[in-house]
Amino acid sequence: MCVMARWEPNARERLRQAALELYGERGFEQTTVAEIAKRAGLTERTFFRYFADKPEVLFDGSDALQIGIVARVAAAPASAAPLAAVASALAATAEFFEGMRDYAVRRQAVIKANSGLLERELIKMAKLASAVALALRDRGVAEPAATLAAEAGIAAFKTAFQRWVSEPEQHDFAALIRQSIDDLRAVAAVR
Amino acid sequence: MCVMARWEPNARERLRQAALELYGERGFEQTTVAEIAKRAGLTERTFFRYFADKPEVLFDGSDALQIGIVARVAAAPASAAPLAAVASALAATAEFFEGMRDYAVRRQAVIKANSGLLERELIKMAKLASAVALALRDRGVAEPAATLAAEAGIAAFKTAFQRWVSEPEQHDFAALIRQSIDDLRAVAAVR
Repeated sequence: MCVMARWEPNARERLRQAALELYGERGFEQTTVAEIAKRAGLTERTFFRYFADKPEVLFDGSDALQIGIVARVAAAPASAAPLAAVASALAATAEFFEGMRDYAVRRQAVIKANSGLLERELIKMAKLASAVALALRDRGVAEPAATLAAEAGIAAFKTAFQRWVSEPEQHDFAALIRQSIDDLRAVAAVR
Repeated sequence: MCVMARWEPNARERLRQAALELYGERGFEQTTVAEIAKRAGLTERTFFRYFADKPEVLFDGSDALQIGIVARVAAAPASAAPLAAVASALAATAEFFEGMRDYAVRRQAVIKANSGLLERELIKMAKLASAVALALRDRGVAEPAATLAAEAGIAAFKTAFQRWVSEPEQHDFAALIRQSIDDLRAVAAVR
């Protein structure tokens, strides 16, 4: 006979949903971890098994996103130009965001209402750009081209994401990414 | 007859220099405001008349820099394309940084050694990009071109600044900015 820790099915997802609901209803600052756990039908202890703190719930998945993007930059054909490698890696995140639009819209509303969360989001994007630049250098791209392609690509990613959450008629995230990269190329081409 | 607060000549500059020396010698965390004030021959009270906290000393001037860049984007000829307007506003910061290279090198060493300061620097640059995008929209540039030109321009600014502090033979900051903008245009042009 063995004693096992009780396994809560889908605990991570339930906590994420409960947190987002409460942050939206009461505001991020006014919500406690105890309330999130209660809404999810779980304990505070379970919350801290999955998340280091209250903001972390909103940034769950960002490591996976970064790992996925970096892996795709690395796997791009050797012939792909730096910005093209970044563009296709970013367009492939459409799969990651599939079915997440509603979640993303509500998450962004919470983040925009809190300067600390907004700063955390900015830092997350800056770290993503650094990781992409490193992946490009590993492909043999020299500096400053690696950093410029990475930073410009992430700028395009941010504008595409912004359109995706704010323009309900835009469903195709991969198409928005490709459009943003083209917009960037157009902006850079005009002298 | 009147009683005036004692005016300390050059107090701000003396505090900045003292802080940078101590952060470099002992590390940022290990330095107290009392020590900075003492090194500068001033009081803690005087320190807090100029700076809100210990990190703030390192970010003094960043508001002035942003105001200067935004004003120059606004003042660019009506015919200037978005990225061209941003490029010339950024190149004009060479005047702001004149004679500051040694300070900038030491400042960057302190910032790189502390993740909290590094995050503050990232946030400062992200806010600068947002302010430049707003200045472009005020010129009638539509989104997403405004945000893309601003973010790409700031990426070029960061790579130029990095070269300026790390390559002692590069003295001409304005030339480095123009070079970075050209590098960016080249990266964006390759498909």
